[in-house]
Amino acid sequence: MSSTQEGIGAAHASSRSAILDLIRAAGTVSRVELTRVSGLTGATVSTVVRRLIDDGLVVEVGRAESTGGKPRMLLELDPYARFAVGVHLDHAGITYVIANLGGSVVARWRRPGAGSDDPREVVARIAAEIRATVARTGVAPERILGLGVVSPGPIAASTGMTLTPPVMQAWTEFPLAAALEEAVGLPVLLDNDATAAAIGEYWSGGVPTGSAFAALYMGTGIGAGILVDGTVYRGTSSNAGEVGHICVALDGPVCWCGSAGCVEALAGPAAVVAQAREQGFELAGRGVSEDFAQIARAAARGEADAMALLERSAQYLAVAAQTLANVLDLAHVVLTGPSFAIAGSLYLPVIQERLSRSFFARGSHGVRVAISSHAPEAAALGAAALVLQAELAPRRRGTRMVLEPAEVVAPA
Amino acid sequence: MSSTQEGIGAAHASSRSAILDLIRAAGTVSRVELTRVSGLTGATVSTVVRRLIDDGLVVEVGRAESTGGKPRMLLELDPYARFAVGVHLDHAGITYVIANLGGSVVARWRRPGAGSDDPREVVARIAAEIRATVARTGVAPERILGLGVVSPGPIAASTGMTLTPPVMQAWTEFPLAAALEEAVGLPVLLDNDATAAAIGEYWSGGVPTGSAFAALYMGTGIGAGILVDGTVYRGTSSNAGEVGHICVALDGPVCWCGSAGCVEALAGPAAVVAQAREQGFELAGRGVSEDFAQIARAAARGEADAMALLERSAQYLAVAAQTLANVLDLAHVVLTGPSFAIAGSLYLPVIQERLSRSFFARGSHGVRVAISSHAPEAAALGAAALVLQAELAPRRRGTRMVLEPAEVVAPA
Repeated sequence: MSSTQEGIGAAHASSRSAILDLIRAAGTVSRVELTRVSGLTGATVSTVVRRLIDDGLVVEVGRAESTGGKPRMLLELDPYARFAVGVHLDHAGITYVIANLGGSVVARWRRPGAGSDDPREVVARIAAEIRATVARTGVAPERILGLGVVSPGPIAASTGMTLTPPVMQAWTEFPLAAALEEAVGLPVLLDNDATAAAIGEYWSGGVPTGSAFAALYMGTGIGAGILVDGTVYRGTSSNAGEVGHICVALDGPVCWCGSAGCVEALAGPAAVVAQAREQGFELAGRGVSEDFAQIARAAARGEADAMALLERSAQYLAVAAQTLANVLDLAHVVLTGPSFAIAGSLYLPVIQERLSRSFFARGSHGVRVAISSHAPEAAALGAAALVLQAELAPRRRGTRMVLEPAEVVAPA
Repeated sequence: MSSTQEGIGAAHASSRSAILDLIRAAGTVSRVELTRVSGLTGATVSTVVRRLIDDGLVVEVGRAESTGGKPRMLLELDPYARFAVGVHLDHAGITYVIANLGGSVVARWRRPGAGSDDPREVVARIAAEIRATVARTGVAPERILGLGVVSPGPIAASTGMTLTPPVMQAWTEFPLAAALEEAVGLPVLLDNDATAAAIGEYWSGGVPTGSAFAALYMGTGIGAGILVDGTVYRGTSSNAGEVGHICVALDGPVCWCGSAGCVEALAGPAAVVAQAREQGFELAGRGVSEDFAQIARAAARGEADAMALLERSAQYLAVAAQTLANVLDLAHVVLTGPSFAIAGSLYLPVIQERLSRSFFARGSHGVRVAISSHAPEAAALGAAALVLQAELAPRRRGTRMVLEPAEVVAPA
């Protein structure tokens, strides 16, 4: 094959992804507009669109009003042409979503978490859950592109998690992707919760292109997903963004990760709950998430002690956001994950204030902070978005993905 | 122009850069080897090599020993075909290098710093220095590709620096690139000291490809340059890597940047010097760099008080390195800049120990720490490397460079 032919082959694949993504982003669009926006030739756009229509991904939805010449045929993505399943696996709960190609959630449900159960049992449970709900919703199994699974990081190529929170020790070195692929019968993509949430945020249209962006994720732990110009920053082993484990107090408390003075150990939901208990708060004690939610509700009602606890936590999260912004030169930070879903409105002003005052390159540009509109199920939706992104924008260059995930293809 | 033609044009430019970079990295190489390593066709390699020879960048240096067939003609870069000038502009001193295409320094000199002088006078001084040394070394002016200039960040597109250390307030909003371009008569590329040092480190062969790497730079300030797989991570406005201004103590001392508890304010050379003075050290007082060097020499002689001061500083720098590693998932950290040139051997074990113990993804891989072999002049050499990189690898995609630097082309 000559280098020219190589160029044409790669160009076609990348044109297909680019056009698919442009149609998705535009909602409704004509071939002429696609030609103008994409910078591709009219002939290339026509060829690619024809194939997308043949594959059932794109439909013609009628003609635009004429502005003189022949009225233009309008194109839309058929959102129900393909689906993806997203699973957020955590010890406290397992959240599932089925999302369509347009990024809309067509099913969402939650079941008890992995707890201390044997990973093989949990995998069997997940497979049964997915099969049952796919059958119930009537989604054609051959239209499901794959399964995205997210869990707290770090993750490793051959296995799943290499360093797990204490409650999930049984998962260390468990071959999660392979086990799920066998049990569910779908290609599996793994990622950590924060990275998936960032992709989901980008996918759902909340993030402008052309800048560096982080999703600051707070579930029971704290992490961040990083996107630059729509591309995930992954680092050496796909474990970038571990901002919950940066040290913000040299003599701070020991963290489960083996370090000390980590943001998570000082200010994460478990730390807030422990501090509340020390101060004599009466907590229901049904787990960190529920107890944290109880404190957040008390703060929202204006109870001073609860407000002080969350204010202190927010100060540390603000330092984490400032660190991310200074290291990565961010323009946007989105607060997401279940704990920000509950308490984000108390954290947002503190984080925004610190960034406005202390972001190093504030002379060049500001850093905007917002709460995700998908904060409660950000990780599960992000897990599905991993799969959709692999279909719509697979050629987008990131820093290399060491995971070598199973290739996602539409089943025949 | 058809999309196919566009593809061929872009492919040629990127093939040229790729082949030039492969020849540089290999030292001596044949066309057959280039074909194998580059993945390009033999015809493309032949065409590109012919043009590089015509342009004087590559020379044929003889035939390899035969292994049966026709002996292969060996190619080398002609390192003296092109040169770049690098300038590190700081208030305490201005360091100049002239480097050749092979990355070797052919001239290096240092003059008094910008101090509080008028920026226009300083620019005139820099132009005169460069003209005089170019004449003295006999480098043909038409072979000089351009001038790289680095200064403490942050930098902005239209001007130069937007937020400067107190001693360089006169440079805020000064149009540095334009003024130098006019005075020196060369295209000018601007960057911050740490980013340039990281490029220089990569250029000089100290960094393996395929991983995320940071140059932790300590001059009088502290910053970091970030490279992922050979590509600079720049962020939104080319101000990424400001790790000297991450907060590591909520109630820490106020920093000149407007924040508080910054690594630089707690542990930078100026902080170490101030702490030494408080403890009654007799310092010569000829500036932060000299005083810091005096403390480092005392520590190297085993004086306990000096060792304790630097140990404390090293603990904070280790936290900065851990933060960079956790956020960016680094595999390598290089300590560079004049202060690490002086005291790096005291900092290295503390930083390496913390990373070995506390790097979050240590289950996946370790983080190697080393002292740069170019630490004293890393910024000036990096400034020259900016220009060489623009010639040899201009098509390498980074996160976008907002600076829109003057295009670097070989003068006719």
